[in-house]
Amino acid sequence: MALVVQKYGGSSVADAEGIKRVAKRIVGTRASGDQVVVAVSAMGDTTDELIDLANQVSPQPPARELDMLLTAGERISMALLAMAIASLGMEARSFTGSQAGVITDATHGRARIIDVTPGRISSALAEGAIPIVAGFQGVSQTTKDITTLGRGGTDTTAVALAAALHADVCEIYTDVDGVFTADPRIVPTARRLPRISYEEMLEMAACGAKVLMPRCVEYARRYEVRIHVRSSFSDKTGTWVMGHATDDESEEAGMEQAIISGVAHDRSEAKITVVGVPDRVGEAARIFGIIAEAGINIDMIVQNVSAVATGRTDISFTLPADDGRKALDALREAQPVVGFQDILYDDRIGKVSLIGAGMRSHPGVSAKFFSALAEAGVNIQMISTSEIRISVVVSQQDVDTAVSATHKAFDLDATEVEAVVYGGTGR
Amino acid sequence: MALVVQKYGGSSVADAEGIKRVAKRIVGTRASGDQVVVAVSAMGDTTDELIDLANQVSPQPPARELDMLLTAGERISMALLAMAIASLGMEARSFTGSQAGVITDATHGRARIIDVTPGRISSALAEGAIPIVAGFQGVSQTTKDITTLGRGGTDTTAVALAAALHADVCEIYTDVDGVFTADPRIVPTARRLPRISYEEMLEMAACGAKVLMPRCVEYARRYEVRIHVRSSFSDKTGTWVMGHATDDESEEAGMEQAIISGVAHDRSEAKITVVGVPDRVGEAARIFGIIAEAGINIDMIVQNVSAVATGRTDISFTLPADDGRKALDALREAQPVVGFQDILYDDRIGKVSLIGAGMRSHPGVSAKFFSALAEAGVNIQMISTSEIRISVVVSQQDVDTAVSATHKAFDLDATEVEAVVYGGTGR
Repeated sequence: MALVVQKYGGSSVADAEGIKRVAKRIVGTRASGDQVVVAVSAMGDTTDELIDLANQVSPQPPARELDMLLTAGERISMALLAMAIASLGMEARSFTGSQAGVITDATHGRARIIDVTPGRISSALAEGAIPIVAGFQGVSQTTKDITTLGRGGTDTTAVALAAALHADVCEIYTDVDGVFTADPRIVPTARRLPRISYEEMLEMAACGAKVLMPRCVEYARRYEVRIHVRSSFSDKTGTWVMGHATDDESEEAGMEQAIISGVAHDRSEAKITVVGVPDRVGEAARIFGIIAEAGINIDMIVQNVSAVATGRTDISFTLPADDGRKALDALREAQPVVGFQDILYDDRIGKVSLIGAGMRSHPGVSAKFFSALAEAGVNIQMISTSEIRISVVVSQQDVDTAVSATHKAFDLDATEVEAVVYGGTGR
Repeated sequence: MALVVQKYGGSSVADAEGIKRVAKRIVGTRASGDQVVVAVSAMGDTTDELIDLANQVSPQPPARELDMLLTAGERISMALLAMAIASLGMEARSFTGSQAGVITDATHGRARIIDVTPGRISSALAEGAIPIVAGFQGVSQTTKDITTLGRGGTDTTAVALAAALHADVCEIYTDVDGVFTADPRIVPTARRLPRISYEEMLEMAACGAKVLMPRCVEYARRYEVRIHVRSSFSDKTGTWVMGHATDDESEEAGMEQAIISGVAHDRSEAKITVVGVPDRVGEAARIFGIIAEAGINIDMIVQNVSAVATGRTDISFTLPADDGRKALDALREAQPVVGFQDILYDDRIGKVSLIGAGMRSHPGVSAKFFSALAEAGVNIQMISTSEIRISVVVSQQDVDTAVSATHKAFDLDATEVEAVVYGGTGR
């Protein structure tokens, strides 16, 4: 008898019909002999509706109260899901994040999990009930206030529960059949990956693959939680996200695996170029200090070789486009002190990344990548590499072309169309 | 500096505008120098909408999960209210029933408060914040599950908090200016009572005056919490519900008070007559045992004098009309055993009650009451009395006539119209 943690997102439980469908799947898993613990998000648009209400009563709602408000969303979905399961003849018990022992720091809106003490979940399991846990939420260790985990929070709740309960697998249900070598919306011949390592999945997620959030993968890697990404609309096997081959099953999956896992893309970033920065020690640190103080995470950084004649250099970096305004304001305020000449801003960019643990030991991967882009007529604006990833920034209109050309060049195309995209975004 | 507990019902916080209006009133009280703790209900129709969702996923939602679901309602209203107060420049902190220390038994749907341990509320007050507490909810002492208190729950939450915090007053905000000698919708000349004792208020509430629930008054009496029932739409003084004259202020109020507090009425009951019950010892106990086993509370009971010739008697009683079906089913099932001849059911009845502590020492009150009804052409079906109350059951169509005639006969009419009914039901 295995212990399975299942995560269902907001689009899976968007209405009464969705909730009943999910309830049937949970009861099916339980009836097959496995123990089940469920983590569930708020119904469909509930969170947006609550945020809208908050904006109606306050121009800037306090973070503590916003968390209190938003956590009502999972309270509703989990209670309804427990009721739907009960109407199928099995006992289910819903638990808030706090009741489930999800202990966090006190950072409202994006709290980090410090500890999980799932005593009540274990008791419910021992008594034969199916525990339904509110995703996305926890309770602060210090203030005892209710917190939320931020984007992708329910995935993280599911993985954290799986780790604390020593579950055999954490099933993340979404609207596609798993993790693909590229977004099937762009590359119809993308192949489903039967398995992928934590490290590669982390790079895929960080580079824009929306199926899992990096944070949840990080947590899974640290606690060695096996994740099974699969569709809530079918019974097909999806993608296993797990450590390197440690047993027969994963070794077999590893044999099938190409050295390249896939091609990811991201259209949500913008590029800032600081022009004419005085070419002195510490100037780059100063600029990124300003950005860090504004609470902005930057991604790729490129500094051009200094033009000796001018004594000045250009520094480019990418950041979430949503933070663009804030970054520009912070830099302009500092311009008199830092003494750069100009700032250029471009949010019409896209990032295309090639990911694969195999590339470490295979020379020529980057050359092949850049050639493919050149042959497709795609101009490269920036380049950044890690041990298992190469990313390029290109014009946003070239993203689809770049993804397709790269996918083809590395022989990732399947012989037939495998991917089915069932519904919305699955988040 | 006084400590004031304020209760606002669902109709006061039905939308963003209502929430902002209530926030202003709270901030006004705080600014005048008093400390404030607030108990708030779910917004307007939220509870009905949640129940509707529950019915969509389950024909018979488990009580534990229904409580989990419904408590999302106050979570939303209290967080929004705290935000609205913050936007007016004062710090407010929302607390669930559990966080506020409202400890109950484990009876989902109608839990009883066992203890209130408001440590976090006291801390918030000490730090200068305004605590906003979710009404209607608590946490079970034994199971640690979330519970709800049932009808009028938020009133009870407010009074329980006032008791635990030794508040100077518990203000119950509603849509009328206080407690009146009769329902101003029926008797336009009804007078506002400046004060009323717990005992009289309890009888008024039990006899259908909807402004307070009996349970909340019972709690207030036990812990000697002074209640001030007043309108959330005006700044007028309302009605003080408190013990017998113990200081100058209340003594003065006592002087003004007539021996009759008022006339209450209730259209929500039905009458069952069990016809031809064998006139033997224990038969009545048997019948009411059957009703009690079905979980039904009965109100008035009348047993006719036994007709010697037949050896049989009739027993009539009143009960909430909502329980009528259940009671009839239980009785019919028992008919072969008990051996009565027939059951008559009538839900076209109304109860009219005259309440007043003064009537104990004033003979002739009941005669005057019955004469007034006779003169108005109202037929009396049943009579029941207590130390401070006389109730009669009449035909439902005679209720308004009976209330008006009684009100006039006891000189309760004001010289001018005092009552203003501002909005909906105020519950």
